[in-house]
Amino acid sequence: MNFLQKLNNAVDKSNSLLCVGLDPQMDKLPEHIKRQKYPFFEFNKAIIDTTYELVCAYKPNSAFYEALGPNGILQLKMTSEYIQKKYLEIPVILDAKRGDIGSTNNGYVKFVFEYLNVDAVTLHPYLGKESLKPFLNLKERGIIILCKTSNPGSGEFQNTTVDGEPLYMRVAKLVSGEWNEYNNCLLVVGATYPSELKEIRRIAPHMVFLIPGIGAQGGKVSDVMEHGLDENKRGLIINSSRSILYASTGKDFAEAARAEAKKLRDEINRFR
Amino acid sequence: MNFLQKLNNAVDKSNSLLCVGLDPQMDKLPEHIKRQKYPFFEFNKAIIDTTYELVCAYKPNSAFYEALGPNGILQLKMTSEYIQKKYLEIPVILDAKRGDIGSTNNGYVKFVFEYLNVDAVTLHPYLGKESLKPFLNLKERGIIILCKTSNPGSGEFQNTTVDGEPLYMRVAKLVSGEWNEYNNCLLVVGATYPSELKEIRRIAPHMVFLIPGIGAQGGKVSDVMEHGLDENKRGLIINSSRSILYASTGKDFAEAARAEAKKLRDEINRFR
Repeated sequence: MNFLQKLNNAVDKSNSLLCVGLDPQMDKLPEHIKRQKYPFFEFNKAIIDTTYELVCAYKPNSAFYEALGPNGILQLKMTSEYIQKKYLEIPVILDAKRGDIGSTNNGYVKFVFEYLNVDAVTLHPYLGKESLKPFLNLKERGIIILCKTSNPGSGEFQNTTVDGEPLYMRVAKLVSGEWNEYNNCLLVVGATYPSELKEIRRIAPHMVFLIPGIGAQGGKVSDVMEHGLDENKRGLIINSSRSILYASTGKDFAEAARAEAKKLRDEINRFR
Repeated sequence: MNFLQKLNNAVDKSNSLLCVGLDPQMDKLPEHIKRQKYPFFEFNKAIIDTTYELVCAYKPNSAFYEALGPNGILQLKMTSEYIQKKYLEIPVILDAKRGDIGSTNNGYVKFVFEYLNVDAVTLHPYLGKESLKPFLNLKERGIIILCKTSNPGSGEFQNTTVDGEPLYMRVAKLVSGEWNEYNNCLLVVGATYPSELKEIRRIAPHMVFLIPGIGAQGGKVSDVMEHGLDENKRGLIINSSRSILYASTGKDFAEAARAEAKKLRDEINRFR
């Protein structure tokens, strides 16, 4: 089963396009969690155990774990292993935004798909298709390329005009076309840019988009659904991190996260 | 002392523009090193101890260490710590090619500059200046932005025409201009593209370039020196990894690496 099949099954089972971003930060964790030996893992485990019925994917961002050094990497591994053992049907996306020359990317492939053994990874397009072959050749995995990112300054390069079209459109066309030989490519499109999302959906009607930027970053569910859904009322992985993870900072954080995730899943589904 | 001052001092002391890329791969290590508890660290230590007089910087690439999981990250830390303790005057560049939204980049800043405590890092430009502020605000560190990379397919996006100029030129102009408020920015320019190097040097006459692609990748020292040197006959950090690290795979690997590094330093200096 490849990544997109696994994702579609998870969307069916959970009736959800919601992805929870597992991005723990020490200073935001509940006090009783901070005192644990593996606080990030304990926090994630509690979040996962209360939200698993409501999500189509989990997305840990590598930066939060790397901040702790080897112990953080270990807790990232423990997290992905926990999901694989207890909730095997839910895909795990590593948000790592990697991208090096081809021979060096083999090291990142080992980290992401052998050591962590997650289902998908996010990558920078800047070095081109040739450099990303070690990823693109993995038919069973999801290869998610940054296209139009959610941050306020993303237009500096992404919206420059390349031979008559914005750079993000050039990326969308190439990735949805010649990069996608094995039908394993996805695109990152920020919820904060609905008109760009609309344009990208137009030229990549059957592709799945990973959508960051809902909630704390200011993106709106209604905009994403209006401009991003495919003809089957799916084709989106809508990520939320902070507004779910830190819905409460007390002992009830996991239940508060569940309530927030349910609210967001249901809000999304009202537009499907 | 900021990164560029530290680099310049190291260039003076070693009379060298050579940087050795510390990119260990298990299947290429000498047999007696493979059997050690920390083979990457032991390998690096031996290479550093024989080459330190010949280099202006060391550049470990994170991918090779991440491939081993937490144990690899630990050996990366041991390597940077070893250089800092024994050869404090030599700057360490982490080739990590990171780049996320601003709030997430704080995690990478912690990994690179708190946990590893290296002197400089390589970054992707695709998300724009605003996203990289957590790096750009670090006045004492070297912030090295990918501009024209050394891989065969780097032109797919980097050489597209943006408002009348190639994208790599747009990157070079912005990074050398408004991104460089604290004079802490450098650019990555591949040795395999001498005509692009010439153009970039023309619009960024005083900037330091990190030059990968010499040796195994096919870039030539003569081309780099002809088109890349600044008016003070420096302004380049010329990296070589494989041709030095694996000059011999026997017990004499460190001495063979020294001989190869000396040959390359001297070849570079014949053009200065």
